[in-house]
Amino acid sequence: MTLRIGLIGSGYMGRAHAIAFATASAVFDLPDSVELDLLADANAALAATAARSLGFKRSTGDWRDLIDDPAIDIVDITTPNLMHEEMALAAIEAGKHVYCEKPLAPNAAVAKRMTEAAEKAGVKTMVGFNYLKNPVTALAKEIIDSGEIGDVFSFRGAHAEDYMLDANTLVSPWRLDPRSGDGVVADLGSHAVSLARHVIGPIVSVAADCRTIIDERPTTQGTTMKIEVTDEVDALVRFASGARGTIGASWLAAGRKMALGFEVRGTKGSLVVDFERLNELRLYTTDQTVGREGYKLLLAGPAHKDYVDFCPAPGHQLGFNDLKAIEIKDLVEGVVSGENSPAPDFREAYEVQRVIDAMIESSRRDTWTDIA
Amino acid sequence: MTLRIGLIGSGYMGRAHAIAFATASAVFDLPDSVELDLLADANAALAATAARSLGFKRSTGDWRDLIDDPAIDIVDITTPNLMHEEMALAAIEAGKHVYCEKPLAPNAAVAKRMTEAAEKAGVKTMVGFNYLKNPVTALAKEIIDSGEIGDVFSFRGAHAEDYMLDANTLVSPWRLDPRSGDGVVADLGSHAVSLARHVIGPIVSVAADCRTIIDERPTTQGTTMKIEVTDEVDALVRFASGARGTIGASWLAAGRKMALGFEVRGTKGSLVVDFERLNELRLYTTDQTVGREGYKLLLAGPAHKDYVDFCPAPGHQLGFNDLKAIEIKDLVEGVVSGENSPAPDFREAYEVQRVIDAMIESSRRDTWTDIA
Amino acid sequence: MTLRIGLIGSGYMGRAHAIAFATASAVFDLPDSVELDLLADANAALAATAARSLGFKRSTGDWRDLIDDPAIDIVDITTPNLMHEEMALAAIEAGKHVYCEKPLAPNAAVAKRMTEAAEKAGVKTMVGFNYLKNPVTALAKEIIDSGEIGDVFSFRGAHAEDYMLDANTLVSPWRLDPRSGDGVVADLGSHAVSLARHVIGPIVSVAADCRTIIDERPTTQGTTMKIEVTDEVDALVRFASGARGTIGASWLAAGRKMALGFEVRGTKGSLVVDFERLNELRLYTTDQTVGREGYKLLLAGPAHKDYVDFCPAPGHQLGFNDLKAIEIKDLVEGVVSGENSPAPDFREAYEVQRVIDAMIESSRRDTWTDIA
Amino acid sequence: MTLRIGLIGSGYMGRAHAIAFATASAVFDLPDSVELDLLADANAALAATAARSLGFKRSTGDWRDLIDDPAIDIVDITTPNLMHEEMALAAIEAGKHVYCEKPLAPNAAVAKRMTEAAEKAGVKTMVGFNYLKNPVTALAKEIIDSGEIGDVFSFRGAHAEDYMLDANTLVSPWRLDPRSGDGVVADLGSHAVSLARHVIGPIVSVAADCRTIIDERPTTQGTTMKIEVTDEVDALVRFASGARGTIGASWLAAGRKMALGFEVRGTKGSLVVDFERLNELRLYTTDQTVGREGYKLLLAGPAHKDYVDFCPAPGHQLGFNDLKAIEIKDLVEGVVSGENSPAPDFREAYEVQRVIDAMIESSRRDTWTDIA
Repeated sequence: MTLRIGLIGSGYMGRAHAIAFATASAVFDLPDSVELDLLADANAALAATAARSLGFKRSTGDWRDLIDDPAIDIVDITTPNLMHEEMALAAIEAGKHVYCEKPLAPNAAVAKRMTEAAEKAGVKTMVGFNYLKNPVTALAKEIIDSGEIGDVFSFRGAHAEDYMLDANTLVSPWRLDPRSGDGVVADLGSHAVSLARHVIGPIVSVAADCRTIIDERPTTQGTTMKIEVTDEVDALVRFASGARGTIGASWLAAGRKMALGFEVRGTKGSLVVDFERLNELRLYTTDQTVGREGYKLLLAGPAHKDYVDFCPAPGHQLGFNDLKAIEIKDLVEGVVSGENSPAPDFREAYEVQRVIDAMIESSRRDTWTDIA
Repeated sequence: MTLRIGLIGSGYMGRAHAIAFATASAVFDLPDSVELDLLADANAALAATAARSLGFKRSTGDWRDLIDDPAIDIVDITTPNLMHEEMALAAIEAGKHVYCEKPLAPNAAVAKRMTEAAEKAGVKTMVGFNYLKNPVTALAKEIIDSGEIGDVFSFRGAHAEDYMLDANTLVSPWRLDPRSGDGVVADLGSHAVSLARHVIGPIVSVAADCRTIIDERPTTQGTTMKIEVTDEVDALVRFASGARGTIGASWLAAGRKMALGFEVRGTKGSLVVDFERLNELRLYTTDQTVGREGYKLLLAGPAHKDYVDFCPAPGHQLGFNDLKAIEIKDLVEGVVSGENSPAPDFREAYEVQRVIDAMIESSRRDTWTDIA
Repeated sequence: MTLRIGLIGSGYMGRAHAIAFATASAVFDLPDSVELDLLADANAALAATAARSLGFKRSTGDWRDLIDDPAIDIVDITTPNLMHEEMALAAIEAGKHVYCEKPLAPNAAVAKRMTEAAEKAGVKTMVGFNYLKNPVTALAKEIIDSGEIGDVFSFRGAHAEDYMLDANTLVSPWRLDPRSGDGVVADLGSHAVSLARHVIGPIVSVAADCRTIIDERPTTQGTTMKIEVTDEVDALVRFASGARGTIGASWLAAGRKMALGFEVRGTKGSLVVDFERLNELRLYTTDQTVGREGYKLLLAGPAHKDYVDFCPAPGHQLGFNDLKAIEIKDLVEGVVSGENSPAPDFREAYEVQRVIDAMIESSRRDTWTDIA
Repeated sequence: MTLRIGLIGSGYMGRAHAIAFATASAVFDLPDSVELDLLADANAALAATAARSLGFKRSTGDWRDLIDDPAIDIVDITTPNLMHEEMALAAIEAGKHVYCEKPLAPNAAVAKRMTEAAEKAGVKTMVGFNYLKNPVTALAKEIIDSGEIGDVFSFRGAHAEDYMLDANTLVSPWRLDPRSGDGVVADLGSHAVSLARHVIGPIVSVAADCRTIIDERPTTQGTTMKIEVTDEVDALVRFASGARGTIGASWLAAGRKMALGFEVRGTKGSLVVDFERLNELRLYTTDQTVGREGYKLLLAGPAHKDYVDFCPAPGHQLGFNDLKAIEIKDLVEGVVSGENSPAPDFREAYEVQRVIDAMIESSRRDTWTDIA
């Protein structure tokens, strides 16, 4: 069978999805084939150009055409956050599976509506937290779950980049509109939170400190925009498991280009990852011989989940787009199987959003805030 | 227009090529599209299975069918070295372009025959030295060629892995047959030599020391095989430019999984790469402020050749397969343009092989050996 | 002139001080020479042995002998925290200068009494926060103060080791007695706080989360001890300058042996240190050429404060004891000059302690807590 | 008893020795105490100043005074290479023990004369190859000797710095005089060779390539000097054990400040050190669990030779001067014990020099050269 994909949006992430569909088809033995069928963008001309470039058969300037088209099996949403809800709800209503970029929604209330609609309609959903798909993430989770590092008592995660550091770069007003979500908390913080939940479990309480550092920026429209969204956040977190720690995010961290990482400490060891080195995990265990103790640098290889489909040789390295290809594989397998949604689905993204919202509220009130 | 690809071989590299054709088509705006048309393997059943898995439309158990098929534009050879010559010469004679995995041939004499045949026939050729395609390699070359590190006087390169370290692993007799080339000198040494030539230029003299460390191995056929090919080599090298240095290769280097790298020293700076971290280059220049001098760690990003087509964000990292996709892009552009072959072509691979042959001869005679 | 030293305590730190006095005398051109004169320990026999081993001329089993001895100029206290107050107040009353190991006191109230007594008596004081003496710390401070990384808006610091991770190691009851200070917050947290204050400035508010992970330990006396002090802490911090960030400490961080470090972010760059690599600082500035941006790895060298006295060649590295020797140099210079106490003095240690106390209170009450 | 030290020379190394004598006395429980007694330098005034600064009791402008002085037990020579022979032979003749900086002599013939004189006279000797004293070196040797990495078949070592890279720096004519030894081969190459011999064993054959890159330099005397000594060398080496590999040295390696290191490969593992990180060793063994294989980063700690005397806590790091202090400890123990010289003695330094000489000859003749 063939799954027909309808893509809305052809920017950074739209393009990344198109590449990933192609790569996933070549790398994995997918249960169904996928066809890049219909691409929607802001207008017909833009969509037509993008469709040619990204390998879609058809294009449209109206995303509703894609919802209405019975040929489309999966609606793939890569537009700005603010538009996710309307598009996803329409797709769900039309009975289509929905694959949506992160963050799912500007806040938990919206994410909840989207989640409940999807669950009620019985369609499959997936959200693009691609770093969960890194074989190194799977390795970290396996090490934790197997007890190799004992009882885990703390987690320290962060996502830092520097793409908003230049105060003179022109910005699109929508991009920093608080209605889209709270700046870096939503954009990068959601990655860190999703990883924290994935490897440690639910977060039950947070105390966060959100800051706006650059409070005015010039816009692409020649005006000046007052900035109210968060540029940098640090939060204390408490997990349901009893583990504690911190989560941070910054888009002003000079020199950090892809610094999403975490350190997990247990009673018998610890592990550290930093996805600026996407294929590496450092592992320390307390069972080592005296005088020979040290952190071990593991390189991703065929012994780790999903790696071998890309390459049989260890240390040869996957790239950013390869994580997206694994995500596509999981999407297709999830859609084809009779069971649950692929992970992470809308509900998981809603849970992530609840943590994000709690961080924002905690910071506003300068208190610890529980996630009920 | 569409270029039709005929692939011979569906192992590690055959599969990597198939993935790369798919990814390259999605990532780059190729001048012609490519079609994975006909796949040949050792027998019809094997070929049929592989064709399905790798996305080829047709299959055959006889590679000559592929040569004879007028629909095929490019013959892509990923079989063991020993078979390259016969296949390539047949393809050349049939007027097809040839894309062949490295090393091109077991020795320079064979590589020369292949090169001259291709040049006489006027077909385009390319050889799969994929590490030349790394944006980091292009960056290294740009830094050297621009004079940023002054006059380059030395180069130290090596390729070390450990996949042959286990003396008890069963090996296929053909694999370690000296007629296929001299073990690691051919297999990994050729990568190091091709990089050395690419960033520094021609090598004119070598003094090499080749060793066989594990001199007996059990075969997949239940026998024991005496090993005569090289397990590890170190060589002193002299370049036409006057630069000097070393080139090494080992497939017994415990812990090294993809340790292909080099260090280049100039009168105004130096640079270091190690492709176990495929996206990094360390650069030191002598023009730094006192007290603020240091090696700078550059992460591949959109400012570097070919990166931006994969991702607009720096530090997000390409993987091994992405280098192969760049190679495919260069192949297609080279084939489509009226001009020269894409680089590196058969002639370049022949030049690499001459250095390899000189290393082997130098080691046999324990002397410096010139490349005439 | 000669400064006569009276040392109380001959354990880990007593010994480190003795080594440092010797090294400092050889490395630096001290304004006065120092003489290791009288050593006091728990009893006369122990003291006599230690004096011989550490190079002291005389010894005593009663530390009060040392206070009463008019020959002694500087009283050097390296006993457990709980004993600092009594000894320091006696020394101050006797008009002696006091050099005391960190943390100065179990809490800020005690530290305040000690500080005020010293200031009233007009004696010089110094506290052994040796990491402030690292040339790399001076370099970090110089980079920050010069504006090289712009306006600093965040700091993330921590000190993690793993020496308390083994739950079966026998502990001395006094060591984990809450009256000595709150476990790792006092022991390692004080290092992180002192560095934060040194490079960024006063901290005005904290929200901390202190945890006891291993809540029972066997004692050297054959009993089991319930543990109530902190094993691990994470805190949000706000500086008077407006900068914000985090400070953490753990003595259960498997694999971390000397992981005291910090990251400072500014509007024009950032810097990172980790004293498990005592001689390195990573610096990123935004003024770099496109395509050549990267973190620079600076190695301590003669261009940096105090390094050249140890070695004229860069990159040759100072060790832990060398930091202590720089501390001694600053102590002697501070005592000899007519002006202020050497830094950090009791008052600075008191300010550090106030932050520590605020962390503990914040954690107890689960709120932000101001340092008035 | 007390050993009285007579030091000749008070430059970089003279000063390092004085510091090391002080630190060693404080750190180690030496069998005899040492007294910095008499310092000789080029003239009386210089010597007097240096003696005060370095803590010597007496001084002289004529080194022969020191030889003639019956109070002196150990003559410590830190003058330029060219002067070692005369001074050492005089000291030996006077029945004194001799501690001499490396390289011992400008060539093996001289080193042999010095060695034979010392052995005939029955005095103890030691040469300052301080990196042999690094606890990390002892760890590497222990790992190799214990068989933990199996049969060692290759070694790759080098010492690279960049202190001669600036072609405009004024140089002292004697420094680059070929009669002092062949430039970097002698200066840094000797460190790499001594380490190679220490951890692997005797070298029996070499093929070297020595280059002069900067062939003219301005002198401190206002003239221009033609440079004929080696700036950079690479050599193939063969050990008596059957192991092979490379040794290199450069003083033009931009960015390298203390890059003395080596990689050792065996049939069951490998290890890597780089003394720009003096306290680290990376170890890989083949006995690791599948999916958990990786290089382990060992930090020097109390489990390793000589470390604990400096500090009981692991990862706290020794510095360059600490290695010299260990050397002094070995010197004193060697001199006091009735047995052999401390290692490395003159004979060992002579063996190192034979390898250096063979490299130079090999390069001159462009052939492999045996060490008979």
